[in-house]
Amino acid sequence: MKKETALIVGAGQGLSASLCRLFVKEGMQVALASRDPSKLDELADQTGAATYGCDATEREDVERLLEAVAQDIGPPNVVVYNPSYRVRGPFVDLDPEGVRKALLITSFGGFLVAQAAARQMLERGSGTMLFTGASASVKGYPQSASFAMGKFALRGMCQSLARELHPKNIHIAHFVIDGGIRPPGQASAGDDAMLSPDAIAETYLFTHRQDRSAWTWEIELRPWVEAF
Amino acid sequence: MKKETALIVGAGQGLSASLCRLFVKEGMQVALASRDPSKLDELADQTGAATYGCDATEREDVERLLEAVAQDIGPPNVVVYNPSYRVRGPFVDLDPEGVRKALLITSFGGFLVAQAAARQMLERGSGTMLFTGASASVKGYPQSASFAMGKFALRGMCQSLARELHPKNIHIAHFVIDGGIRPPGQASAGDDAMLSPDAIAETYLFTHRQDRSAWTWEIELRPWVEAF
Amino acid sequence: MKKETALIVGAGQGLSASLCRLFVKEGMQVALASRDPSKLDELADQTGAATYGCDATEREDVERLLEAVAQDIGPPNVVVYNPSYRVRGPFVDLDPEGVRKALLITSFGGFLVAQAAARQMLERGSGTMLFTGASASVKGYPQSASFAMGKFALRGMCQSLARELHPKNIHIAHFVIDGGIRPPGQASAGDDAMLSPDAIAETYLFTHRQDRSAWTWEIELRPWVEAF
Amino acid sequence: MKKETALIVGAGQGLSASLCRLFVKEGMQVALASRDPSKLDELADQTGAATYGCDATEREDVERLLEAVAQDIGPPNVVVYNPSYRVRGPFVDLDPEGVRKALLITSFGGFLVAQAAARQMLERGSGTMLFTGASASVKGYPQSASFAMGKFALRGMCQSLARELHPKNIHIAHFVIDGGIRPPGQASAGDDAMLSPDAIAETYLFTHRQDRSAWTWEIELRPWVEAF
Repeated sequence: MKKETALIVGAGQGLSASLCRLFVKEGMQVALASRDPSKLDELADQTGAATYGCDATEREDVERLLEAVAQDIGPPNVVVYNPSYRVRGPFVDLDPEGVRKALLITSFGGFLVAQAAARQMLERGSGTMLFTGASASVKGYPQSASFAMGKFALRGMCQSLARELHPKNIHIAHFVIDGGIRPPGQASAGDDAMLSPDAIAETYLFTHRQDRSAWTWEIELRPWVEAF
Repeated sequence: MKKETALIVGAGQGLSASLCRLFVKEGMQVALASRDPSKLDELADQTGAATYGCDATEREDVERLLEAVAQDIGPPNVVVYNPSYRVRGPFVDLDPEGVRKALLITSFGGFLVAQAAARQMLERGSGTMLFTGASASVKGYPQSASFAMGKFALRGMCQSLARELHPKNIHIAHFVIDGGIRPPGQASAGDDAMLSPDAIAETYLFTHRQDRSAWTWEIELRPWVEAF
Repeated sequence: MKKETALIVGAGQGLSASLCRLFVKEGMQVALASRDPSKLDELADQTGAATYGCDATEREDVERLLEAVAQDIGPPNVVVYNPSYRVRGPFVDLDPEGVRKALLITSFGGFLVAQAAARQMLERGSGTMLFTGASASVKGYPQSASFAMGKFALRGMCQSLARELHPKNIHIAHFVIDGGIRPPGQASAGDDAMLSPDAIAETYLFTHRQDRSAWTWEIELRPWVEAF
Repeated sequence: MKKETALIVGAGQGLSASLCRLFVKEGMQVALASRDPSKLDELADQTGAATYGCDATEREDVERLLEAVAQDIGPPNVVVYNPSYRVRGPFVDLDPEGVRKALLITSFGGFLVAQAAARQMLERGSGTMLFTGASASVKGYPQSASFAMGKFALRGMCQSLARELHPKNIHIAHFVIDGGIRPPGQASAGDDAMLSPDAIAETYLFTHRQDRSAWTWEIELRPWVEAF
């Protein structure tokens, strides 16, 4: 039986690394994409994952990425979108260019990746897309308008996409990560007032494997001690 | 190592049976409670589960149940609350006694079970409670006020409970089952426009096992073809 | 032209008094109902409102109330439901009878009043029902399960009712009062970190008068300085 | 006493025209801004409103606009942001440039206007900003990802802004217009299965005038017969 394949966009040291290790452990072939793929070398060495350079806000970059991945390891069964960007501070002091960048990286990049992936998944008739949200996906905090804008927009896209693609056998899931993620090196053990990226990865994998008669489109994850 | 124990309240042929079979398969000892325990005989025979009679809306019944379970198989690590009741029809025609009963069975019974279970779990310092909601937990449909009242109330209790007990290492989760559940006999295979109770049970189990650094308090489950 | 009539259930010194005064000032005839109508005497003297005794959790009381009001001043154009009850404290210490009472007064009473009022409004072909919610209508706070249960249930009923009765020209609105209400004597002036009941009453009246092409079913009200 | 002043951005024939007429009738001085101000001539003639050309997605345009309005009629007491843009169709067919434009016009333009207005309002110590949302602000519909992205993002910004600026005496309100708005010529009378823009305008004005002890940050408006 052919191995499942996964593409993780916005791959870095944290959640993406946990996802990569878990997916590989579960027998999947993994592609990692980042604007600066050199920082993926160590993870690639450890896991055998393939790495790709891609600016997720550039349409051509994204389309090239999906084609390359399809050619190299096959059209992905699972696509994960992680990138985000924000500027913080008093509303009147926010740099408009930072706000625009936040919208583009956090949500428009998600659109581009989802669109290119959807084409491959519709052709195959199946697939899973997993999007990383944050507390700011459902709650606009003071001094953090740009993060709310990008993450709300990504969530709106995911909901629209779930309504459109679930009946086409493509599972869309949006994760509201409501708390800080532990730094690399404490992925599976450490201060459990912060989310373990390994634990988050388990929920991503479980969601991917849900029977389609009982799909979840959104899941909130929060440390046991986190006020909400 | 001691076996984990589970108590399923409102046990019948559908979701409860799937939960019972899965929990037993995973090595747990299971107690089933129902107003009419005779209807649990077959499932008990198949799985070795213990059965108990209990009217979940009666405080003494519920306290006796939790004591008996603790004595027989140990204080439960997992408690599931399933019961619900409703009357339907044009709002002006709803029988007030039916509406009162809907509130009591769907939400007040959940309170009584949660309170008795919380006492045992707080003493042990750990535990999981899983509550079965419905589309009506988050959306009040026309001609269905009593169901919305009971299920909204149960959800409000769960959210309050999660905020209070998560920091005490007791995991509260509320499941929004958004669609029809397949009839017994088609639990794991059948029309996947309806939720497989076996698939729902997998998500309950996974939630119970989530690492406490990344707990979910609410999960919506819906067939892939269900409009939402 | 015939005067509009209003029935305020759960009338006391606070919001109900502000509503009564505003409705009378706007030319409406007002009926006030309370379990203990003697406490309404002063307000009745000041405003000319009629007063009625009624236990809102008793079906016969409620039906008698609506009949009496219809006879005395005509079937109400506006019905307001205010009563609530709660017990507070650690979840395991909550008195179950207090929780049951909270459910019955906060939500079941609302159902009974809504049902009796709906019969009259459907016959006339128009009407407005206004329900008083709280922060706890949309957020379950720790140590406050009973309040969440009652207020979530009331909100679920209102949403169901709005979906069912809006197309029959009966306007249902639910108000999420997110903050403390000023004590009597400071209704229109005072510490604006607390809600002025006179200001709340203005929003109730405005909602009643909304053109039916643009109805609101839920409104949150919160002091400018209140964190949310 | 000095007249209140209002700036309406994204002014056209529909809701903006109703707002302009109502504000003028209530004694306010009104400024209208549009990318193509020539289409505002008739409304300006009828109401005496001043008109300005402005591309709301261009920072310098927006800053110039706010300065010009401040100079001509004074810093606005009320600012309304209406513009939106979308592309529709199957997700895989959406033109990425259209999606980017949707994000920029619907949400980034709202940010730019809000930021420039906030500077003036913070200096004065008061003000109101009113943002026009849609069903898509809270629900991502199939084949409509770009609209959901823009409107979710705008809503996220409004929520962040409300949390940040309410305690500084600046009232932020977001309106979820859940239904079609009647065409010009039927603003106040016509098919009430569609929202009357005159009726919407009444709710905008009422919200602006709410006492700050009881502010609303979000209001949904929907025709009485609209399913929800």
